[in-house]
Amino acid sequence: MKLISFYAHGAVRAGCIHEDQVIDLNLACRKMLESQGKLRAAQIADAHVPADMTELLQGGDESLEMAREAAKFVLQNENSNGEPKAVYARSEVKLAAPVPKPGKIICVGHNYREHILEMKRELPEHPVIFAKFANTVIGPEDPIPYYPITQQLDYEAEFTFVMGKRARNVKQAEALDYVAGYTIVNDVSYRDLQRRTIQWLQGKTVDGSAPMGPWLVTRDELKNPHELEIFLTVNGEERQRSNTKNLVFNVNFLVEFLSGIMTLEPGDVICTGTPGGVGVARDPQVFLKDGDVVRVEIERIGALENTVRTAQ
Amino acid sequence: MKLISFYAHGAVRAGCIHEDQVIDLNLACRKMLESQGKLRAAQIADAHVPADMTELLQGGDESLEMAREAAKFVLQNENSNGEPKAVYARSEVKLAAPVPKPGKIICVGHNYREHILEMKRELPEHPVIFAKFANTVIGPEDPIPYYPITQQLDYEAEFTFVMGKRARNVKQAEALDYVAGYTIVNDVSYRDLQRRTIQWLQGKTVDGSAPMGPWLVTRDELKNPHELEIFLTVNGEERQRSNTKNLVFNVNFLVEFLSGIMTLEPGDVICTGTPGGVGVARDPQVFLKDGDVVRVEIERIGALENTVRTAQ
Repeated sequence: MKLISFYAHGAVRAGCIHEDQVIDLNLACRKMLESQGKLRAAQIADAHVPADMTELLQGGDESLEMAREAAKFVLQNENSNGEPKAVYARSEVKLAAPVPKPGKIICVGHNYREHILEMKRELPEHPVIFAKFANTVIGPEDPIPYYPITQQLDYEAEFTFVMGKRARNVKQAEALDYVAGYTIVNDVSYRDLQRRTIQWLQGKTVDGSAPMGPWLVTRDELKNPHELEIFLTVNGEERQRSNTKNLVFNVNFLVEFLSGIMTLEPGDVICTGTPGGVGVARDPQVFLKDGDVVRVEIERIGALENTVRTAQ
Repeated sequence: MKLISFYAHGAVRAGCIHEDQVIDLNLACRKMLESQGKLRAAQIADAHVPADMTELLQGGDESLEMAREAAKFVLQNENSNGEPKAVYARSEVKLAAPVPKPGKIICVGHNYREHILEMKRELPEHPVIFAKFANTVIGPEDPIPYYPITQQLDYEAEFTFVMGKRARNVKQAEALDYVAGYTIVNDVSYRDLQRRTIQWLQGKTVDGSAPMGPWLVTRDELKNPHELEIFLTVNGEERQRSNTKNLVFNVNFLVEFLSGIMTLEPGDVICTGTPGGVGVARDPQVFLKDGDVVRVEIERIGALENTVRTAQ
């Protein structure tokens, strides 16, 4: 499935995209259960296929399987008069970030091999990790706010995985079983804030600095996360390109490493690092400005495109 | 009020401590409303004085005022046969961290003036900030888990404030209006993990590394947060001592600084930094071991005491 979150009924609801249609998974599940004569269809749907993405992921594979069935059911049975609506045309809805309020956003620094070597640095022994908070998350159809507290707004294309199961001391061999799926994050960075002290957090956790999406491709549809082309363009001009096969610390390693330090929870978001070519490292340096269109594309996932807009 | 969270009915509930009694604020509110003949007492109590601390803080001063009245009401009217119980003896309940699941935990590094000067460093121009995630939070009656991934487990006494209101671009003069209250955090640090890369997160966000409590002293009871003695002992031996008047960046400054970067939300926890005397900076270095009792005391707040216990 391509899991999404989307705006409907004044809230953000979990769904999936099938071709040009958007399915509301909670309502789909309720309708499926109603068709089976279940009197408590709404309550059972809320328990197993909740409308909030983090809660849905907490239900694990069992909930995703039920969601999958429910999506299939409504695609076959939805009646155009049916209210509440469980199937929308893609053009009718606005997408939010697939995981709008992650408990943790963990980012990995310096993680693309060829870029480290071209910089004549040694490959690191341990991943560098740092945080963004959930205030950074925006959706694939939102503008990237450019707060006038920086002269150095920059992009970072990041292949990202989302946890699907509580993980503590998980080994590499089992690691992928703990992943719900894969998405894209642009780790927007305020370089001057990032570098004015020795810890990066203040340049990394500005409101709206983590565009995410457009969807979460569930792991059953992307068995090998380590052979995906990744590239970023600004106004159509290519700035970053690599392949996830170049990750120094891959998804399996990161799940073992991180779950050895802390308990990872369903919905936790891990951004695996960015290839060379960020604006601050270019010669001459080049930073984002109002109106720039930043597009990150990852093979077999899709494209995340946001426009930079001055904000207050 | 001294706001707490405590274990009751298989859940963690918001309360307050009055002398030797613990009041369940949600139930107190319900009982007060019932005594006024309100048929929807439980629902109104849930809306205004919810049992979860973060939700209670989202209600702002209005909810805290109602909680205060409700506490007074049940202290005068509680019937010993009254079920469900809204008043407990202190000895009957176990305390959790006052804010068990903060959305953000923001820590400030290098923030005690006399310690920076004694180290012959210059006073910093900008605060160094870094993150811990909510997996670190444990309560005042919990052991500090010592995971065998470190040889350098260390303590950091931290005067801590908790946000009571959404804050964005708040000025120093109004800053304290946005604070719900004050508490203590021991910023337990895995020094070898902290220092093996250039970013501290991996040594700072190990499970259970943020003992917090014992309570949150609401700001009406602590008008001046910048004249409080703070000290830490290990097995009764003093290791750190200073006063919050020595903070380079005080509470007012930090609210302005942080809210200029990101939206702060009710329940967000800000740890203001630690005085000199941490184990890693001593000569010879000394680290925590199984069985050590670490106690942080802050004037007009109280004492947070936890025992270190080897964990797996």
